[in-house]
Order: sequence, then structure tokens, then C-alpha cells
Amino acid sequence: MPNISQRGQIMPESPIRKLVPLSNDAKNRGLKVYHLNIGQPDLPSPAEGLEVLKHIDRKVLEYSPSEGLLSLRQKLEKYYKRFNINVDVDDIIVTTGGSEAVLFAFMACLDPGDEIIVPEPAYANYMAFAISAGAKIVTVPSSIDEGFALPPVEKFEALITPKTKGILICNPNNPTGYLYTQKEMNQIRDIVKKYDLFLFSDEVYREFCYTGAPYISAFHLPGIEDQVVLIDSVSKRYSECGIRIGAIITKHKELKKNVMKFCQARLSPPLLGQIVAEASIDASPDYMLMTYNEYVERRKFLIDGLNKIPGCYSPIPMGAFYTVVSLPVDDADKFCEWCLREFEYEGQTIFMAPASGFYTTKGVGNNEVRMAYVLNKEDLSKALKVLAEALKAYPGRTNL
Amino acid sequence: MPNISQRGQIMPESPIRKLVPLSNDAKNRGLKVYHLNIGQPDLPSPAEGLEVLKHIDRKVLEYSPSEGLLSLRQKLEKYYKRFNINVDVDDIIVTTGGSEAVLFAFMACLDPGDEIIVPEPAYANYMAFAISAGAKIVTVPSSIDEGFALPPVEKFEALITPKTKGILICNPNNPTGYLYTQKEMNQIRDIVKKYDLFLFSDEVYREFCYTGAPYISAFHLPGIEDQVVLIDSVSKRYSECGIRIGAIITKHKELKKNVMKFCQARLSPPLLGQIVAEASIDASPDYMLMTYNEYVERRKFLIDGLNKIPGCYSPIPMGAFYTVVSLPVDDADKFCEWCLREFEYEGQTIFMAPASGFYTTKGVGNNEVRMAYVLNKEDLSKALKVLAEALKAYPGRTNL
Repeated sequence: MPNISQRGQIMPESPIRKLVPLSNDAKNRGLKVYHLNIGQPDLPSPAEGLEVLKHIDRKVLEYSPSEGLLSLRQKLEKYYKRFNINVDVDDIIVTTGGSEAVLFAFMACLDPGDEIIVPEPAYANYMAFAISAGAKIVTVPSSIDEGFALPPVEKFEALITPKTKGILICNPNNPTGYLYTQKEMNQIRDIVKKYDLFLFSDEVYREFCYTGAPYISAFHLPGIEDQVVLIDSVSKRYSECGIRIGAIITKHKELKKNVMKFCQARLSPPLLGQIVAEASIDASPDYMLMTYNEYVERRKFLIDGLNKIPGCYSPIPMGAFYTVVSLPVDDADKFCEWCLREFEYEGQTIFMAPASGFYTTKGVGNNEVRMAYVLNKEDLSKALKVLAEALKAYPGRTNL
Repeated sequence: MPNISQRGQIMPESPIRKLVPLSNDAKNRGLKVYHLNIGQPDLPSPAEGLEVLKHIDRKVLEYSPSEGLLSLRQKLEKYYKRFNINVDVDDIIVTTGGSEAVLFAFMACLDPGDEIIVPEPAYANYMAFAISAGAKIVTVPSSIDEGFALPPVEKFEALITPKTKGILICNPNNPTGYLYTQKEMNQIRDIVKKYDLFLFSDEVYREFCYTGAPYISAFHLPGIEDQVVLIDSVSKRYSECGIRIGAIITKHKELKKNVMKFCQARLSPPLLGQIVAEASIDASPDYMLMTYNEYVERRKFLIDGLNKIPGCYSPIPMGAFYTVVSLPVDDADKFCEWCLREFEYEGQTIFMAPASGFYTTKGVGNNEVRMAYVLNKEDLSKALKVLAEALKAYPGRTNL
């Protein structure tokens, strides 16, 4: 039998995925499992998006343009203007989710052996897309003790080699919920400019910033406009993860052409998702506010609750709907597994994402988990209680 | 400004794409342009697929499983059984169109430098996906004089090196419409078995075979079941190119795991497209027969008409909805461009795909074009008349 590719074999299996069968087993044993493990919002998609499906009067569900429907791109242009992101419709290329946006950004910017620097902990799939492109992710560590603030500029500079082609940030951050400050963004800008790098900026959580200050996009940073490759997606902001609509936004003319070659090869992004996304951009201010307020409340509730559990610590995340929590356990991978495999409290248990999958540095973050507050407050409350009880019962508990 | 990737720059721009702006210019000049250039069927999508959209009662358009919805995969399993393709639901992984299926098949099977052998002319985007994966496509030429029959086994064997990992066929073929015979399929099987290769088999046109004999799938070939990587898509058979639903089907256990890593990285295939595709598998036999009969009639009409134009020659394609035609012209790229830029006949012109984009061998097929019979007979009749007049007027016409 012919051999499969090495490329796939070196792709790490997600520690979250490994736990899915255990979670299913727990459900089959009759347990209620609280899912804090994935970034699938429970909030409804906007009515505008759901309604438009009922009125599609096309007879042929045909290809859309490779760069996406013009009407969607025009709406996106206006949407970005709300955030003072001044891009032209020609700068916006619609992709099949933010995932394809990352893959095509890497494919179009990086050659095999090229390196990009990413603060860790980081979204695990960046690694998979880098492996797909033959590129190398080099991580610069941030730590829970410093609230996952951006590491000092020297730490980045120490990692720059002739192979370094870019820096990738996710802002607000998955998995930490960290929101970069103006000072940190300026620091990133300076490095990007000094070393003539691409700045890949994953901004899919921009609607969810809890500081009250306006969102700072990579496109707000002066002097590097042509170096920014913005990654976007409607998945999180409209609770429409399934429609697979994202975008790459760049002003770099040659890069646009290069990205378009990959887009043309795959013919077109999903037609139906584009129709839904376009309608969803018209979601009422009430809808957006409802979503925002809901996350604000849940955040306070979850973080307060976590920090009351002896031995638990979570910084206060200023964006997105995640937090990384340190737990009084020997090994968070084992603890998360144990919760699903062995533990139950009044017929309930919890599914958390071990943070190990977000770090490339071995041994770092091994007492941390990521939690997504995609459950309502009542369920969050129960999940917190289950966690507290689990920590009391867990044999690998460490000292406070 | 940082440099873009080499990988994208070496990706050839499609000679069809280059003509699109000229086609738009022609339309802006008021011309009626007959599109024979792309494989976008004009036939309606099945009512079952269109109707289901109107009744989606989900409140959250959430992620589907990375391998696709179980209900869709179960229906696909039954669908394949109709063609005597005996695969298990676990062998079927849903992808974002046939395009992603090809990309992930290459990513999961091939490492940089690996080679696959593909009979040419071939679907141009295979090249783009191979470049994405860092792999090399080596072409074995087939010719219009032999009706695009499979080249003799010795021609394949001459190309096999230690780097050869697979053979790719598209059957029925895009761009030629050629349908491999049992004898040819056996020949492919023998090479694949002898050299322990993958057989990538793109079978998206299987519904459109005009020999009356049952379709021969790569999965019908005994002894290489674990080596077959079947590429499928609902785009063509249900006229649903825009929903982006395809599949990779393999029985190779390690390969399945490898493919799934790429699927997990991109999270999920499009939810809405999967819902439509699942309903479309229930398209009535009348719908499928209507589609089939329509293509049969168009094929006869187009091929007869082409072969009556002095100096034109088209073999009779036994499948798909394409044919490659040789024309009495100096250069088909120039001729196609001239038709759009300079020619008109009674306010009409035609857009054909120069065949050069389907050949990697330089200078081969330079008097050939691909035509897709995705227009109704009335329009095909007009397009044939326009072609005949264009060939009379074209300054680069060659002797008969």
C-alpha cells in the first residue's frame, strides 16, 4: 500500500479532538456534559440571515465569482468602515471561512521553510495551515502570570532570522481573550516595519471587546498598510460558524493577485453562505447589542466564579469569548480526560479544552485549560459547581 | 514591502480567465456572447434541493462535523451503491467541493517533490493543487487523433521514477469528454498495482455516460481497493456548483486519518450546502433522466454541427458535457481572443476555452478549444453558426 504524506503525519492531533469520544461516552452513560471546550456560540444567528434562505428564488445554484459576490464585498466594505477600517471593495476577497483565509494567506505569502512568529498560546489550527504550506511557526511565549500581554519587543527580535516573513496575531485573542493595547499594537507595527514583514491579523472577534474603547485593527497602524493581511470571518460575530464565510483583506497588489490564483483554483466560496452573510451584515443594532451584553454578563459571571474556586486563576479577558484558566492540577490533559471518563457530580460533568494544544513549547501551560463562555448563565453556574467538585475529587490535585 | 510566495507566482494563470475581461467588454458593446467556455450547467438544480432551503428551522447555523453530516454521508453511501461502488459510510469524507477533495487528497498523500502522472489534456486546476502541495504533475500525452484514448502502458512506465506516488484520472474526462473503456481501466489498475501507487480518480461526471454500459469506477478494479482515492462532487450532477459539496472516498485507513487532520483544521464543510446536497440525492428519476437526455441531445447536435464546419474536428465524447475540438486556425488562444475582441456576427460572438490551458506540454493542442454544451440547443445552433462565420473571417485561418 502506498505511503501517506509526512506532512499530514507531523500535524499534531488536537488534545480537544481526542476527548470527543470520551464526551460521547459520558453522554451515553446518561451524563449531562457542559461544553466549555469549543468556540461554537449558542446564541441565535440573526433573523435577517435565517430569513433570506426562505426566499432564494434561483433555479440554478451556480458558481459565484472566485473573489466572492460583489454585493457581499460591497457590504463588507461598509461594515469595515464602521470600525474605521478603510479598505476598498477590491481589497476584500471572500473565502470559505476564516480557515481558508489563513490557509490562502500562508500559501500566497510563504514558501516552504519560511517562518512566522506567533505569540503563544495560539489557535492550534494556525500550525496545521503552516504545515500545509510547508512553513514554520515560531512561537514567542506569553504567560498567564502577565495576563497574556504581548511579550517585549526583544523577545520577537531574538527570533527573527532571514527566513522570517511575518508575524501573526489574533486580536482579540483565541484562546486567551486578550485584547492588545495601543502600545502593544504600536510595538508590533514597529517590528513589522523595521524587518519588512507581513502582519497576519486574525480579527474575527472584533465585535467582542469589553474595554469600551474603539477596536484597534492592524489596518489602523500607520506606515504598514501594504503589509497587513487581515483575516476575517462572519462565524463568530453572527453565530454562523456553519456557513463558512470569511475574507482575506489586503492592499498589497501583488499579494491580491497571488491570493486570487488560489481562489480561482477552488472556483468559488459557498454561494448560500454568502447570501446569508450578506443579509446578516444588516442584523439589527438590537441583535448585536443583545449578543454583546450577553457575553459581557457571562464573562463577569464566569471569571468571578472561577477566581472564587480555590487554586483557580483566570485573568479578566478583555475580548472574544474565551479565557485561559490555571487549575490546581498536575496535568490539565489528564484532568480534562478524568472529568469525562471518571467523574460526575449529580449526573453532570464538564468538557474543557486542555491548553497544551495551544502551546508549541513543551511543558508550558500544562495546568491550564481554555474555556469558552458559549453557555447561558444558568449552565455556566452549574458548570462552575461541577468544576469545583471535580477539583475536590481529582486525585492529581496539587497544593494551593 | 515583503515578497509574496514563489509558489503562487509559478501557478499558471488560466487562459480562460484571461479572456473573461474581453468577454465582459464584448457584452458592454451590446454583443450576445455564447458561453461555451465553462462547466457551469444551465440546467435547473433539483426541486428537492431548492425546496429544503425554505424549511430550515435551525436557530443557529452551527459547525457541522469535520467529516460532514452523518445523514449526508449515509445517503452518499446508498447513492454509490446504485453504481455498484461498495464503500462504507466511514470511507466517505465530505469536502468543500471537489476542489477541496483534490487539494486534501494531494496534501494527505504527497510530500514536496512527489510526482503524479496525469494523462493530458487535463483539468487545469489539478496543477494548481499540486503546486499548493509542492508536488509535481507529470503528463502523459493523449491526442485528438486517437480520440483521447488512454496512452499505452509503456508511456506511463517510461515516466515512473522513485518519486512517483500516484496516477490521476478524470473519468468521464474534463476537458475531452472521453470515457475510459474496461480495457483501459484494467491497464491503469495493472500499473497502479505493479508500482504500488495511489489512483486518484475524479468521477464527478459519472452520471453523464453515453455508451449505455454501466459506469466503471476506480473502485470496481479488483486488487487496488486500498489504493483508490475517489474524488466526487455534487456540483455537476445536480447543477449545484455553488453549494461547494464534494467528497473524498478512500478505504486506506491511514490515509483517512491523514485526510481528517486537514478536514479538522478547516473545521467543517458548508452546512447549508450539505443540507441541499442531501435533499438532492433524492432528486426524482425524472429529473435525472431529463438532465441526461438533454445532454445526449445537445451532444449529438453540437458534435454533428462541429464536424460539418470545414476544417473542424471533434471526436464523439462518450461522457461529461465537454468536447475538445480542433480548429483550422494558427493559434486557438489568439482565435478565442479575436472572437471576443474583434469579431461579431449579427450582434453575437462566442467564448470558447483555448485548450492550451489543459496541456503542460508546450505547443501541443494549440489549434484546439474546449467547448462545454451547457447551452440549450437553440443557443448551441446559433453558437455553431457564429463559429462557422468566425472561421471564415479569421485572418489566421489555416488550410483545410
